[in-house]
Amino acid sequence: MADERLEQQIRFILEIDALKGVLRRSYLLAGDRPENSAEHSWHVAVMAVLLAEHANERVDTSRVVRMLLVHDLVEVDAGDTYVYDSAGVEAKAEREARAATRLFGMLPEDQGRELRALWDEFEEGHTADARFAAALDRLMPVLHNVHTAGRSWREHGITADRVIARNAAISRGSRKLWEYARALIDGAVMGGHLAPSPPEPGGSTPRH
Amino acid sequence: MADERLEQQIRFILEIDALKGVLRRSYLLAGDRPENSAEHSWHVAVMAVLLAEHANERVDTSRVVRMLLVHDLVEVDAGDTYVYDSAGVEAKAEREARAATRLFGMLPEDQGRELRALWDEFEEGHTADARFAAALDRLMPVLHNVHTAGRSWREHGITADRVIARNAAISRGSRKLWEYARALIDGAVMGGHLAPSPPEPGGSTPRH
Repeated sequence: MADERLEQQIRFILEIDALKGVLRRSYLLAGDRPENSAEHSWHVAVMAVLLAEHANERVDTSRVVRMLLVHDLVEVDAGDTYVYDSAGVEAKAEREARAATRLFGMLPEDQGRELRALWDEFEEGHTADARFAAALDRLMPVLHNVHTAGRSWREHGITADRVIARNAAISRGSRKLWEYARALIDGAVMGGHLAPSPPEPGGSTPRH
Repeated sequence: MADERLEQQIRFILEIDALKGVLRRSYLLAGDRPENSAEHSWHVAVMAVLLAEHANERVDTSRVVRMLLVHDLVEVDAGDTYVYDSAGVEAKAEREARAATRLFGMLPEDQGRELRALWDEFEEGHTADARFAAALDRLMPVLHNVHTAGRSWREHGITADRVIARNAAISRGSRKLWEYARALIDGAVMGGHLAPSPPEPGGSTPRH
């Protein structure tokens, strides 16, 4: 029968099946239900294969793909945190670090260490690969929102200034993709699918 | 604004969102719904990262991952064909080839050619990477069935001989994983989750 190493790997593979049940705020383009984190992970991994040429710096596409395949695994324990939920985002780091310790700890030690390092790298965002992976992870919900008439933005009362503040970091990974996303965001405001930025406290016109 | 190349890439990325709506026969381990082909593609890609060491031959894990990320894309047009549906499987090749031409044809020519070649390689199964990718693609539904008390097998009246005939090709990619799967299949029969092989026409005892 199987050795202990294979048994550990299979137990981990079965455990992460639960990511298919973690729902995000974005809706599928077909519009019938929210997206889950497993299918999202697939989608951004495919994006990495296709869009790597637009990264600011040279990236190792295979590493970016791997990073994106595991970037949301911790949600098996920690759940998805809506990026515009400031309170949730604060507690998120601790919750997710605990989840990472448990989940990656299920694997044979060498593989657990490798995937944990990839996940840490993604979270820290200090390398070209991590910056580009994060850019794709942010671009995808913008695309989903723009192509579902801003459904998730409207449901949560999100305004353009918040979308821009949240997603400006796309430019750290790819100025080209941020320029593209920026145009989509402006278009969504003009099309009435995204509420415009509120006037600033001083009464001046919004900067964006 | 974006150039035509980026526009083509984004249109393709949006188009394949539909894979999240293509349902397979396997149930999630949580048991609440059938799996879709997008989350399945994510799951087998993660398996490739973890299980590559068990391949019979040396494989290029990054290529196997890429192959698995795109192996079901054609289902956006062609739908999922149940592996035990013999009539469906016959018409499948033609339907899927048409889908591949349309879908990969949406991409910039170089990328469309590259992904089409990867998909063809997977379908033909003549390389070590393709054999190992196919092994994972077959192992996953065995795992899902075994860990949901054979739910999908029982719903479709599948017997052990058919499961074995269908999945024996796992050994072309990994003898070790086939040995593991074979033990699970025997266990499922013993546990009453998979109907035993019917007696052979000559009246002899089943070979398996």
